[in-house]
Amino acid sequence: MKKTLRTEIIAVGTELLLGQIANTNAQWMSEKLAAYGINTYFHTVVGDNLERLTQVMKEANKRSNVIIVSGGLGPTEDDLSREAFQQISGLNIIEDEASLKKIERFFNERNMEMTPNNRRQARVFENAKILENKYGLAPGNLVEYDGNIWIFLPGVPREMKQIFSDHVLPYLSELNGAQIIQSLVLKFIGIGESVLEDRIQDIIQTQDNPTIALLTGRDGNTIRLTAKAASKNEAEAMLQAKKKEILDRVGEYYYGDDDATIEGKVFELLLKHQKTLAAAESLTGGAFQSKFVSQSGVSEVFKGGIVSYAAEVKQNVLGVKKETIETYGTVSEQCAYEMARRASELMDADIGVSFTGVAGPDRTENKDVGTTYVCLYDRKGQRQVEKCKFFGNRKQIRYQAVLKGFEMLFNYLK
Amino acid sequence: MKKTLRTEIIAVGTELLLGQIANTNAQWMSEKLAAYGINTYFHTVVGDNLERLTQVMKEANKRSNVIIVSGGLGPTEDDLSREAFQQISGLNIIEDEASLKKIERFFNERNMEMTPNNRRQARVFENAKILENKYGLAPGNLVEYDGNIWIFLPGVPREMKQIFSDHVLPYLSELNGAQIIQSLVLKFIGIGESVLEDRIQDIIQTQDNPTIALLTGRDGNTIRLTAKAASKNEAEAMLQAKKKEILDRVGEYYYGDDDATIEGKVFELLLKHQKTLAAAESLTGGAFQSKFVSQSGVSEVFKGGIVSYAAEVKQNVLGVKKETIETYGTVSEQCAYEMARRASELMDADIGVSFTGVAGPDRTENKDVGTTYVCLYDRKGQRQVEKCKFFGNRKQIRYQAVLKGFEMLFNYLK
Repeated sequence: MKKTLRTEIIAVGTELLLGQIANTNAQWMSEKLAAYGINTYFHTVVGDNLERLTQVMKEANKRSNVIIVSGGLGPTEDDLSREAFQQISGLNIIEDEASLKKIERFFNERNMEMTPNNRRQARVFENAKILENKYGLAPGNLVEYDGNIWIFLPGVPREMKQIFSDHVLPYLSELNGAQIIQSLVLKFIGIGESVLEDRIQDIIQTQDNPTIALLTGRDGNTIRLTAKAASKNEAEAMLQAKKKEILDRVGEYYYGDDDATIEGKVFELLLKHQKTLAAAESLTGGAFQSKFVSQSGVSEVFKGGIVSYAAEVKQNVLGVKKETIETYGTVSEQCAYEMARRASELMDADIGVSFTGVAGPDRTENKDVGTTYVCLYDRKGQRQVEKCKFFGNRKQIRYQAVLKGFEMLFNYLK
Repeated sequence: MKKTLRTEIIAVGTELLLGQIANTNAQWMSEKLAAYGINTYFHTVVGDNLERLTQVMKEANKRSNVIIVSGGLGPTEDDLSREAFQQISGLNIIEDEASLKKIERFFNERNMEMTPNNRRQARVFENAKILENKYGLAPGNLVEYDGNIWIFLPGVPREMKQIFSDHVLPYLSELNGAQIIQSLVLKFIGIGESVLEDRIQDIIQTQDNPTIALLTGRDGNTIRLTAKAASKNEAEAMLQAKKKEILDRVGEYYYGDDDATIEGKVFELLLKHQKTLAAAESLTGGAFQSKFVSQSGVSEVFKGGIVSYAAEVKQNVLGVKKETIETYGTVSEQCAYEMARRASELMDADIGVSFTGVAGPDRTENKDVGTTYVCLYDRKGQRQVEKCKFFGNRKQIRYQAVLKGFEMLFNYLK
């Protein structure tokens, strides 16, 4: 039997509705299903309440043909998944002999008394396929009803994942006549989401396979391409063709795929050009360097830097001229330039990058919050200063400044 | 009007069904609602699909009297929350003048072209209560329909949280005539979770109201007390009594309540003692300073620092003695001491703090990954060096080092 699966996941547990935990079970299962080309159309969370659980199951049985229920199989009275489904299906519930033996053994081995409610965990639907639980006591089970497939799994993530991987996924992917779904994420810096969308509007509108999704990331914007095909190679070829089409338009802003990071790209380019880097940071307070140093091996290209937070540190340690600060202020093109130059000289680095600005919440030196100068200085090459106006709170302004530094280095080195 | 609220949350977005992100929005909102005694009975996730979205909304309108829809208010064609609700309610959609002006201003200020799709974000239901979005362009809106309350919020967590806290929660809690549930979080540093639990075991066991929950936080461990009472004052008194009982046992590790941060506490103590601070960072690469500078106003106590990543920077810029590095290596008590001392001298600060160690993934100077020295040097007082062995990946090791610096400063200054 091959059919188009319309999957839905019902997570049962009052702790989810109280916000004590997020529904990561549904996320995890959906991600696995998507990778096999199986569509999930709904997630529902409902509490340990027979009436509402029954109501949700009825609705699911109407709109989906694979319904996965996670949770509500435990030993206590408020574990009600079986009871609720029995109300709508009328299916018999029996004790699974093998599971019952396993439960008894579990308590014997530990010299613990097996309280009667533990028997409850061995209950499954008559004629169901039993799905072995390697890490816990309640087995999963799979049963057909009304032309649909109902799958019951424990809510404990470790147990759910094992049963899902070992039994559910192979079963469903065979049913689905599995198609490969492959994704590719393209990463951009220096271009806003709406401009990006505008530039590839016609490509997006004729999208079908691969599909195209724009997302705003923390480090620039991304485009996610997702292709469906009969084989991995075919999907890969489709993705590469679409990538080329997009990069022909906006390739100048592109810095990498999937797990690429902007600091990683800058690291790679510094290595390639055999250039070393130093930094002088004021408003960013070390955040640029810390992000760069998050990568192992950067000592090959990174010397260090100065966090010149106080004006006198800019002057006495970094060596920005007193007149510069007096004439133009610390938040100025001139100060940014001297900071970058002096950082590169002091640290004996080829390139110096500097950050000075107003992180807020108050104006300083009569300049608006968000006003920031980022300078790149190459001892054997160019100097560039960008005056920026960033928006948001202190944290956001500082982060945008850091990102601008990486963007300038990327543009300069590429 | 007071009524018993039956709340339901609908999260809209295909990325949720693909498992790319978990539905943390619903979790967050449910947790807040629960704290006000408002019940959430269902979470539903549905994709950017008009038919299925409409179907879910119809069902919600039957079973709940407060329906919160998060997501689907953005500028693009697949943002469909308004359209879906219009299909079932027949309500008019209008452009909110103030929101439209804000969108235009946003693009003007940035000298960016406002593409037509951005107008879409200003659309709200006629006669709806507009809920101001401080961090984004699409406002929230609240409208009554069929005796139920429908609330539309953006899906971006930061925007959703602000609107929910500022507008939705006050509105709903008044409707609900809620019993007061008040929480108090106590924060600790320098004590492990199991030791903390052990020290207050008997208090935890007799807990009832307030309840006591231990949590491992990013910056130390926390205890959350939650009291239920008829009034705010009564709840507050219960919390304070329980706090006193706990601090009598473990007060030496306590640094603050609720939103207190360890960097904030150190800032406060530096101000109190009129001491200034400078830093020298090796493996942490600026992360300590960046965390400290995340607070506004720190220029009163913070001078700046050196990121001495390369050994020659430690020597030439910071002024660590060549013999020290040759004899003991850069990852040593002696080097840490000189780094802290030289930072304080160079920056003319009272206290210098330094970090040197092996962040990994490879051993350096024949020392194990995780080996770290943190030094605190007071020009008019003490010096302390702590040798630590941290575990985890590069990021975790660096973060633990940063935290150790704050812990040492806290212990020294308190």
